[in-house]
Amino acid sequence: MANKQSLKIAVIGGGSSYTPEIVEGFIKNYEKLPIRELWLVDIEEGRHKLEIVGELAKRMVAKSGLPMEVHLTLDRRQAIEGADFVSTQMRVGLLEARKWDEHIPNKYGVIGQETTGPGGMMKALRTIPVLLDICKDIEELAPNAWLLNFTNPAGMVTEAISRHSKVKSIGLCNAPIGLHKWLSKKYDTTPDHLYTEFVGLNHLHWVTRIEVDGEDKLTELLDKREEYSGKNVPATEWDLDFLRGLGGFPSYYLKYFYLTDVMLEEQLESLKAKGTRAEVVKRVEDELFELYKDPNLEEKPKQLEQRGGAYYSEAAVNLMVSLYNDKRDIQTLNVTNGKTLDFLPEDASIEVNCVVTGKGPIPLPVTKVPEQTKGLIHAVKSYERLTIQAAITGDREIALQAMAAHPLVPSVNVAKVLLDEMLEKNKPYLPRFFR
Amino acid sequence: MANKQSLKIAVIGGGSSYTPEIVEGFIKNYEKLPIRELWLVDIEEGRHKLEIVGELAKRMVAKSGLPMEVHLTLDRRQAIEGADFVSTQMRVGLLEARKWDEHIPNKYGVIGQETTGPGGMMKALRTIPVLLDICKDIEELAPNAWLLNFTNPAGMVTEAISRHSKVKSIGLCNAPIGLHKWLSKKYDTTPDHLYTEFVGLNHLHWVTRIEVDGEDKLTELLDKREEYSGKNVPATEWDLDFLRGLGGFPSYYLKYFYLTDVMLEEQLESLKAKGTRAEVVKRVEDELFELYKDPNLEEKPKQLEQRGGAYYSEAAVNLMVSLYNDKRDIQTLNVTNGKTLDFLPEDASIEVNCVVTGKGPIPLPVTKVPEQTKGLIHAVKSYERLTIQAAITGDREIALQAMAAHPLVPSVNVAKVLLDEMLEKNKPYLPRFFR
Amino acid sequence: MANKQSLKIAVIGGGSSYTPEIVEGFIKNYEKLPIRELWLVDIEEGRHKLEIVGELAKRMVAKSGLPMEVHLTLDRRQAIEGADFVSTQMRVGLLEARKWDEHIPNKYGVIGQETTGPGGMMKALRTIPVLLDICKDIEELAPNAWLLNFTNPAGMVTEAISRHSKVKSIGLCNAPIGLHKWLSKKYDTTPDHLYTEFVGLNHLHWVTRIEVDGEDKLTELLDKREEYSGKNVPATEWDLDFLRGLGGFPSYYLKYFYLTDVMLEEQLESLKAKGTRAEVVKRVEDELFELYKDPNLEEKPKQLEQRGGAYYSEAAVNLMVSLYNDKRDIQTLNVTNGKTLDFLPEDASIEVNCVVTGKGPIPLPVTKVPEQTKGLIHAVKSYERLTIQAAITGDREIALQAMAAHPLVPSVNVAKVLLDEMLEKNKPYLPRFFR
Amino acid sequence: MANKQSLKIAVIGGGSSYTPEIVEGFIKNYEKLPIRELWLVDIEEGRHKLEIVGELAKRMVAKSGLPMEVHLTLDRRQAIEGADFVSTQMRVGLLEARKWDEHIPNKYGVIGQETTGPGGMMKALRTIPVLLDICKDIEELAPNAWLLNFTNPAGMVTEAISRHSKVKSIGLCNAPIGLHKWLSKKYDTTPDHLYTEFVGLNHLHWVTRIEVDGEDKLTELLDKREEYSGKNVPATEWDLDFLRGLGGFPSYYLKYFYLTDVMLEEQLESLKAKGTRAEVVKRVEDELFELYKDPNLEEKPKQLEQRGGAYYSEAAVNLMVSLYNDKRDIQTLNVTNGKTLDFLPEDASIEVNCVVTGKGPIPLPVTKVPEQTKGLIHAVKSYERLTIQAAITGDREIALQAMAAHPLVPSVNVAKVLLDEMLEKNKPYLPRFFR
Repeated sequence: MANKQSLKIAVIGGGSSYTPEIVEGFIKNYEKLPIRELWLVDIEEGRHKLEIVGELAKRMVAKSGLPMEVHLTLDRRQAIEGADFVSTQMRVGLLEARKWDEHIPNKYGVIGQETTGPGGMMKALRTIPVLLDICKDIEELAPNAWLLNFTNPAGMVTEAISRHSKVKSIGLCNAPIGLHKWLSKKYDTTPDHLYTEFVGLNHLHWVTRIEVDGEDKLTELLDKREEYSGKNVPATEWDLDFLRGLGGFPSYYLKYFYLTDVMLEEQLESLKAKGTRAEVVKRVEDELFELYKDPNLEEKPKQLEQRGGAYYSEAAVNLMVSLYNDKRDIQTLNVTNGKTLDFLPEDASIEVNCVVTGKGPIPLPVTKVPEQTKGLIHAVKSYERLTIQAAITGDREIALQAMAAHPLVPSVNVAKVLLDEMLEKNKPYLPRFFR
Repeated sequence: MANKQSLKIAVIGGGSSYTPEIVEGFIKNYEKLPIRELWLVDIEEGRHKLEIVGELAKRMVAKSGLPMEVHLTLDRRQAIEGADFVSTQMRVGLLEARKWDEHIPNKYGVIGQETTGPGGMMKALRTIPVLLDICKDIEELAPNAWLLNFTNPAGMVTEAISRHSKVKSIGLCNAPIGLHKWLSKKYDTTPDHLYTEFVGLNHLHWVTRIEVDGEDKLTELLDKREEYSGKNVPATEWDLDFLRGLGGFPSYYLKYFYLTDVMLEEQLESLKAKGTRAEVVKRVEDELFELYKDPNLEEKPKQLEQRGGAYYSEAAVNLMVSLYNDKRDIQTLNVTNGKTLDFLPEDASIEVNCVVTGKGPIPLPVTKVPEQTKGLIHAVKSYERLTIQAAITGDREIALQAMAAHPLVPSVNVAKVLLDEMLEKNKPYLPRFFR
Repeated sequence: MANKQSLKIAVIGGGSSYTPEIVEGFIKNYEKLPIRELWLVDIEEGRHKLEIVGELAKRMVAKSGLPMEVHLTLDRRQAIEGADFVSTQMRVGLLEARKWDEHIPNKYGVIGQETTGPGGMMKALRTIPVLLDICKDIEELAPNAWLLNFTNPAGMVTEAISRHSKVKSIGLCNAPIGLHKWLSKKYDTTPDHLYTEFVGLNHLHWVTRIEVDGEDKLTELLDKREEYSGKNVPATEWDLDFLRGLGGFPSYYLKYFYLTDVMLEEQLESLKAKGTRAEVVKRVEDELFELYKDPNLEEKPKQLEQRGGAYYSEAAVNLMVSLYNDKRDIQTLNVTNGKTLDFLPEDASIEVNCVVTGKGPIPLPVTKVPEQTKGLIHAVKSYERLTIQAAITGDREIALQAMAAHPLVPSVNVAKVLLDEMLEKNKPYLPRFFR
Repeated sequence: MANKQSLKIAVIGGGSSYTPEIVEGFIKNYEKLPIRELWLVDIEEGRHKLEIVGELAKRMVAKSGLPMEVHLTLDRRQAIEGADFVSTQMRVGLLEARKWDEHIPNKYGVIGQETTGPGGMMKALRTIPVLLDICKDIEELAPNAWLLNFTNPAGMVTEAISRHSKVKSIGLCNAPIGLHKWLSKKYDTTPDHLYTEFVGLNHLHWVTRIEVDGEDKLTELLDKREEYSGKNVPATEWDLDFLRGLGGFPSYYLKYFYLTDVMLEEQLESLKAKGTRAEVVKRVEDELFELYKDPNLEEKPKQLEQRGGAYYSEAAVNLMVSLYNDKRDIQTLNVTNGKTLDFLPEDASIEVNCVVTGKGPIPLPVTKVPEQTKGLIHAVKSYERLTIQAAITGDREIALQAMAAHPLVPSVNVAKVLLDEMLEKNKPYLPRFFR
């Protein structure tokens, strides 16, 4: 690919409120990533948003003066054909579905979250079949393209793709780059002076090494109960003895597992005060689209940064740049396990450090895997694999095994009730379950 | 060993109420296992019980007319010296400690159980150092002896021994033989017509194959929600869809994990009505010892069978017979994993089918491991390994990791409270934690 | 199968001179293996021999008075249909092809042998496609049948079948049973008092444990340079220091690798004196068939025992008896590796101890694998896998890699010459190479 | 280490004729590798050469004007104390021993070579105990130092160190950098545009991927029978069909295995004409030292490049620079296997691509391992491990297993003769064998 002088990129879910960010990234990195055609594609229901954000994208490119064409389309196949990169950032069932992912578990005293727990499972059931359809198009129309998957639950979606299609795909999360940004600021340095080692799965990782200029900083970060993403529940809730013995800096999402009681309480209070997180996000998005409509706006508005999901597009552009230029730098990605974590199947998707070559990422062997992480990683991976199987087959019996296997679901009885109610609520998006 | 014509056996915890059962087993199997010396050994606190049950043992042997000598002693080293088999059936802290193992977790809404959950963890912390001490004696005084470990939590204790001593040890549970008895009765056949395959850990297994004369019976057993040990909570509580999808016949203990809510409720009710299970057992034991005192009693009293732990001694004698005679039959035992379960460490203790040769058991490869079992097996194994490490080091930080890693402990905060209170209550038996 | 009261067996290559032996075995074991129908099947070229040996078989059965029917046929599909066991004992290309397998390598100073070296490779290329054809018939007409494969090179043929068909197959060799017979005689005991552990591949194994009544005899057997099969080259040729350090009792075939110079010299001398081994065997067979023609002969003639291949039929009958009766005894068989030898692929065929259950053999974990055996095992396995690939594809490039990878082929140049000449000579039997 | 501003380097075997090259490398890379102290250390027998080459080194540094001190010493401990890097480039037994390594095998029709075959084995037996002694000094006096091991046979020496000492060591060969130089010239590009993947062991590797700007060049290199190191035997000797099917670009040393006959013939002819390679090298070295004596010489003389071993010092300096600067580039090194080649033990030394971080190299998973390479790799690794064991124990029985296991030794009988004669000849350097 390195010699190709004009690239085509298809962004599926191009009508997303995040689009201005990725467009900004493409503009800034044009030198290293000469995009000639940028295709924003969405579905009929997203036409209106696509038009608004697409026009903004065109204005942004125009201002840059770069020879980049922005195409808006509802024809996915046209967008994909001959693409060098396809990125996905969509939400099957929209925020309405997310609302129920969060709300129904809460009703039964269970964590209600977009990617973790029963909510994440439902999202996977809705999303995996759609992504596999997209992959069929890519196999046919752009077999050499790289698929960069941001679509959550990114770990399960990436694993489903790698096991059930031939598309070259990589899963991406903003947490690793976010940690680097935060560490750089904290230690007044730049990311190239940092070394971090991630162990685990998407939204279930521990950072087992944190070094600045070769010096260990993990110990002091744990000692001080620091955390880079302090949303919802403050880090002070962590028991210090526990944190010190953990052997790794925990992902924010691990609070759902380790501090379930506190997190649930917080969710229930917040639900009462502000509704589900989906509803909060919906309001933010509406405001953003109001801004985007302004024909004088020619750049990404500041407000987008508060939307959450910061650095997503930076992560994506970094990855494309490294693939295109065979850069061989280390990035933390969701890839096929191989022999990296020897207690998981070789075809499982995991989130670890990789060297990004022109032929794709090669996962680096991990140097430490604390005993205390293994059981939880494996428990969640078992749930994930059962969920993928359920998503593909539409088999309720397997779906029940998946739900019951999730560490946040307290018993088979609760699993059964949750599953029945959630499947019913998601009926329009689960054709394989309702044939 | 096969040529040795007179064997010496040491039973540690010989004052146990179970002793008449194992003595009966030795008498019945004398032809295949020519025991010349049977040493019953106990500690000072157990002297009284040892004397009562020891005298009964002597009367039983006398009645049999066999040339077997029964020795009672408080000198462990004398009992072990030159032994061919050592078996352990002891309870560090006696039933009093068990009472708190059951009671304290219940106070915090957590399963309180002898071998599973926080109670099992405490039992492991008390027991492992004592067993390792016994192993030092065996290494020195009977290096060729086989140690048959019945002492619960048998999986953790066996793993601790195999990783931290050179003694040849095997862990034993009565569940496998009990299942065979039950199946034999149900299908009106004998155990040699059965084939069962166990996957998992001690008190955490799934029977993934059940065949009678080569014909699958697993499916129908799951379909009918049958269970061989219906204690406390009836099998009808199982959700049928769940059971059918499970891929294996679940151990009774799995109800603690899958039906946590129902099991906890039952515990709390029972606690109110009858006190802890420890207290119930205490009353049964007192009655048994009253019986044992009768100088006219020359055989195992019927009442012992209701004590629970049925078939323990039959399992033990079967194992000794196979080891002594290089019998090469298949028994389900707690042994070192090797490559049997490829997602667990090679030195982990697991409960699987083994061929019992004269040189020891060789674990058989498993033919099926349902995805849904792996996560839970690994989660519990992680907890177990952390517990073993804590037991040996007396390190509270690791103990907290172990407690928090247990799937039945709902959060780190609960883990912290439980650990503090339970360690304090067990202080007399945990010298390594209170140096 | 255990409940089936009348079995059907198909013997492919039924016109073989060995047939009387297997018929004798079936008669002797009728109680444990109630064969109702015995089908002897051969190809047109073997019609004459089939008739001679088939009539003898009928006379043998008639004399026994058992209700067993002997069928002779050239219709393979009829023989296979509904069979419970299929056994194969054929020789594609007959002894004429074997002659060249032995002769051509000798011309170039290379070991010429039926199953080892270039000769074995050619035999594999001729045989594998035929066996896979037979497997297609079995898949269709007798999907539950067990295929017992005696056809050499048994290791490669068995691996080809297990990787490229769905037939349940097991490879068999007479070496393990022969060793047990020899040890039993030597130590004046019976096989059930022996424990031996085999490590390696078919015709490339080391016996790493030999115990009689639990006592090690391996050391003394090596010390005395004993061997059970002293054909061609006496054991005294072994260097004693080497043998002592080897860590296992070597298969006779290992002399081709360790004593290549001596073995080659012996071959060249023998070739001059008596022609190839194929020619010697041809004469023995002709004499046997003369005997078989005698209408008064109603039993296996003594002379057959000198034919070589002793105990083959005993091994086969033992295996069938164990499969039929779910006997769970330990036999040494050629089966799929799984995790037994961790340095070989999981789907490789290896020769190791197995527990034979009614559902098939389960390989036992090996307890010792001397370092010095690993390299040679892997080198030969690499050659075998390339040969299987060549046999299936008819690809000369891969065939050259296979030939060059064989440890007995001294250089690529020799490999090239050998391959060209041997392929040409085998043209009639290698349709895939000459399309 | 990254913050350390003045480094100390100890070069063991500092009196080597290669020293001017490494000194030149240090001078050129001073910016990236601020060496303050360079210690050249040698043994008493090398005092004269050390003085000559040491004075040249001093003149070279003086000319550069850099603040680097050159120390010459016979006190190894002083040189090592506090060093940041230790590099070794020594030859136990000097060229005289090498002469016999080459000569004795040739007498018996076996390849006689410095690092491959019986010669390499003797070199390992002489060298490993000395290196382990050096490691004891490093453990004590410079526990944080990196040991860069150039001493051949580098694979075995590196494995011996990693398994039997705590020193952080890396084995280095000039072949990978040499290939990059050659490819860069051939394709008129720079090394950063190349991607190559090495699979195998030191002096036994296949390059399974060769890409220039992401485009495959392996196929055409094999098709044209190209080779980068055409010493002794021209590439045209390769059979083209064989080369095409090989799946990787073979190391020059593989000719000893694949073209044994041609290579041996060439050796015997060359022996007749010029004596052993050791003798040729001796003459070259004598000439070099004559040049070095010239007090006006202030730079590395051109003639050194013809000495062989080109780029050794460049490889070493590159590695130090990457370690010092946490550069995270990809280099091909001899490191501990881990799970990289899953058919070899985890503690085996292999030669593969690594990412060089400040904490050391992390081996990259290999993307292709042709079947035909596995057997040979494993055969040589078995020999290597036996050799290491022999070197450490001085056990002749194991040494015989090692010699007999080497694929270039044609039989046990030859192994025995070679071993006896070669051990005897090396008596002064093998105290462990002659106690």
